[in-house]
Amino acid sequence: MEAARSYTLRELAEACDGEVVGDPHVLIRGVGTLQQAVAGDVTFLTNSLYRDLLRDTCASAVILGPEDRNATELPRIISANPYACYARVAQRLFPMPTALPGTHPSAVVDPTAQVSPTASIGPQATVGAGAVIGPAVVVGPGCVVGDRVVLDEGVRLYPRAVIYPDCRIGARSILHAGTVIGADGFGMARDATGWVKIPQVGRVVIGADVEIGANTTVDRGAIEDTVIEDGVKLDNQIQIAHNCRVGAHTVIAGCTGISGSTHIGRNCRIGGGVGMVGHLEICDGVTVSGFSLITKSITKPGVYTSSIPSQPHRVWMETLANLRALPQWVQKLKAIEQMLEKPKEE
Amino acid sequence: MEAARSYTLRELAEACDGEVVGDPHVLIRGVGTLQQAVAGDVTFLTNSLYRDLLRDTCASAVILGPEDRNATELPRIISANPYACYARVAQRLFPMPTALPGTHPSAVVDPTAQVSPTASIGPQATVGAGAVIGPAVVVGPGCVVGDRVVLDEGVRLYPRAVIYPDCRIGARSILHAGTVIGADGFGMARDATGWVKIPQVGRVVIGADVEIGANTTVDRGAIEDTVIEDGVKLDNQIQIAHNCRVGAHTVIAGCTGISGSTHIGRNCRIGGGVGMVGHLEICDGVTVSGFSLITKSITKPGVYTSSIPSQPHRVWMETLANLRALPQWVQKLKAIEQMLEKPKEE
Amino acid sequence: MEAARSYTLRELAEACDGEVVGDPHVLIRGVGTLQQAVAGDVTFLTNSLYRDLLRDTCASAVILGPEDRNATELPRIISANPYACYARVAQRLFPMPTALPGTHPSAVVDPTAQVSPTASIGPQATVGAGAVIGPAVVVGPGCVVGDRVVLDEGVRLYPRAVIYPDCRIGARSILHAGTVIGADGFGMARDATGWVKIPQVGRVVIGADVEIGANTTVDRGAIEDTVIEDGVKLDNQIQIAHNCRVGAHTVIAGCTGISGSTHIGRNCRIGGGVGMVGHLEICDGVTVSGFSLITKSITKPGVYTSSIPSQPHRVWMETLANLRALPQWVQKLKAIEQMLEKPKEE
Repeated sequence: MEAARSYTLRELAEACDGEVVGDPHVLIRGVGTLQQAVAGDVTFLTNSLYRDLLRDTCASAVILGPEDRNATELPRIISANPYACYARVAQRLFPMPTALPGTHPSAVVDPTAQVSPTASIGPQATVGAGAVIGPAVVVGPGCVVGDRVVLDEGVRLYPRAVIYPDCRIGARSILHAGTVIGADGFGMARDATGWVKIPQVGRVVIGADVEIGANTTVDRGAIEDTVIEDGVKLDNQIQIAHNCRVGAHTVIAGCTGISGSTHIGRNCRIGGGVGMVGHLEICDGVTVSGFSLITKSITKPGVYTSSIPSQPHRVWMETLANLRALPQWVQKLKAIEQMLEKPKEE
Repeated sequence: MEAARSYTLRELAEACDGEVVGDPHVLIRGVGTLQQAVAGDVTFLTNSLYRDLLRDTCASAVILGPEDRNATELPRIISANPYACYARVAQRLFPMPTALPGTHPSAVVDPTAQVSPTASIGPQATVGAGAVIGPAVVVGPGCVVGDRVVLDEGVRLYPRAVIYPDCRIGARSILHAGTVIGADGFGMARDATGWVKIPQVGRVVIGADVEIGANTTVDRGAIEDTVIEDGVKLDNQIQIAHNCRVGAHTVIAGCTGISGSTHIGRNCRIGGGVGMVGHLEICDGVTVSGFSLITKSITKPGVYTSSIPSQPHRVWMETLANLRALPQWVQKLKAIEQMLEKPKEE
Repeated sequence: MEAARSYTLRELAEACDGEVVGDPHVLIRGVGTLQQAVAGDVTFLTNSLYRDLLRDTCASAVILGPEDRNATELPRIISANPYACYARVAQRLFPMPTALPGTHPSAVVDPTAQVSPTASIGPQATVGAGAVIGPAVVVGPGCVVGDRVVLDEGVRLYPRAVIYPDCRIGARSILHAGTVIGADGFGMARDATGWVKIPQVGRVVIGADVEIGANTTVDRGAIEDTVIEDGVKLDNQIQIAHNCRVGAHTVIAGCTGISGSTHIGRNCRIGGGVGMVGHLEICDGVTVSGFSLITKSITKPGVYTSSIPSQPHRVWMETLANLRALPQWVQKLKAIEQMLEKPKEE
């Protein structure tokens, strides 16, 4: 993909404090993988295993680590963290699209809402009573910003994000299309008439520099708040239940569900399709493998897993049959043990 | 969180037929947990294990069971079901926000739709031809109510709920943001050209007092209807496929998927992240543990499980390797058994 | 359900190249299952096991295979593929509702968008700059079509579908309510400041005759495109991550998540609740059982499984305890083996 304009390699290197080796004036207008880059693209090498691909790349420049400094003769940016360097270079080439300040005439903004003059409220968006929309905020088409919601500076809501009343989103956070923040948690009490709804009177409070994927849902607290701390990144289709806390810089991959009142520490890495039961305390620095289930609190950093990779159906069916029969096999094994021990005693 | 106005403890006790012990005139304006309640809050004790917390609470009143009647000197409401009592007290303090009757000028309502004068149609909502919107219904911003949809009295649609044509929602049911009711079921027939779509001509019929969480989807029936009976509570991000039936007062936690034509009984409790294959009959009173898979019909109430809690990665990897090798271990065990039996026979 | 008008059995048989046996003039106005069909309905028999139901059906006509040709005296359509024949007959009876061409006055269409005069842009839809809306396209209420998006002829977007900029949808594809196409993939690099967002500059390119279920999400590529080929059918609540490719005529059931850069072949059948880790190559013709996890590339067609069906909780808990103890049982078994071998050697 082509950027709106070209940059010299030097300009791009400045974005990530990288060192230029070779022609700093080469003009870059796009990014590409080692294999598919074309002239004008910058590419990157983050794993020396792919050095062979580097030889044949058509890119005009490369970002790589000091260990690969001489692996190419192309103009290049040397960085101790080439992947983060690539991220910043790509951000320079492809900045977030700006939105015209002002409110689209089709949007419905409550007269008591405070909207910064530098904010952009898109077509058919709705902004509720008492909401506060900070500077440089972008509210996309069809978004619904509830009463008294606060969007800090630079928040970006993609189309049709919904934020229920009283929730708060920190600076520069990004919410993708279809996210729902602050819906009622799943709280009810049983009595003779059926289930009685427990009013969910807490809020969702989201920190700064958070990104939340498409169609992800974060429920408001039952009494206290549900909290997503600074720098958290949530993928698509995640469900965070009421009263949860997700610690700073933790990342969670798609389709994961976190049950109510579970607190996840900082700098955790939670895989996709994971489940966590409620009321757990997960310490900082925990990694959970994709498709695993967490049922107990975790007090030590490390990797936790319960997923089972697939096998050809028949092989798995045999294993499963043996698994089911395990109690019998264990009985037999115990019987053999006893039989073998007895003679000794005699 | 603070309610719009204060209530005396007696007024609140009336909400749940509770007995007041201590000063009935104490003014309550909020709710709080035992630990975080402040003056003016009512809190609750549903488990005698937490009696210690009760001693230090700053709440102005407590809801508790007869067995804890004397566990505090605070003004209190005694109820046989303190959690349900709390629910009703909180509902009194925090009633659902009312919506002004009438249709927002930005909404698009088909002239053939019948809208009760006490219904509220929010900004940018769309109401289709022949739809019937009952008294006190709230259609939130950006909702899409399809042709001939019927919303019974007091139905509440949160922002951006979508209801496809011909579906029917019973009285007082609540649909959260992003729910999609009545999309086409996943039905197709294979022929030489690829997959041929099977028109999905059934409806979704939802009973009274149902609550459906954010971004949950319930597909319309292929031929007959998909049915959600009275009092069912569905959490967020659930998928209910075509032709399913969910029995009255059954609750289903988030991220669960129910395949087509499966019928779930009444008063079931289905955990989060559960899967059910299609064409099953699940009887009344079944509990399914979170993250479990149901592949056969269930005819006896009880708890059903297949989930595996995580372990430290290396521990699990060893277990998994042994599981995979199970057929070989079983062979060896059989061989040992035979070896041990033979000598006897000789 | 009743169709808008009646058709003779002959007219319906033409829809699927079927052979009429019995009165070709019988009028049909609806469809029904064998058990619930009423007079005027056509029903179908796709499995000879249900012949008994055929005897008692109240349907006016039946679609069935040559092997069941004489299983009824009702007027009937004989087809080598009765289910696909039913699909085409039902399509004739219940054609997709047409939408009036033109743009609803409440829609916001950028003046630089090219909209075919036969396209229909619904209420409160938004169409971005440079978008191209082909003939007979239907953009439902509240949809958001991003800048430069291309919708080929006959595309149908149900309410509130969102398509991010630059994506492309092939002819006749159907996107259900709440789908999000082209949100940013989950890409970031870690550095000392936290996670640095990697701009996602690829697109989503969707082929012809694709159907995508409600609230499903398909992320745009990080650098290259995410691709959904012709004839793919995706159920509800699926997550397809960045850089994936789904091969032609592959079907994926609900709640499945495919991680980044995984390529799925053609004519695969992926069950519901499945997970696939990233960077895999799945060959053509693979079937994955529901609730299974794929962690390695697959090079042979066939069925792959890792799911575990539920059992009564206590039974499963015993199995699980034995599974956890498996390493110890294996040790004991080895010890017994050794003990039994030694005497032989002596």
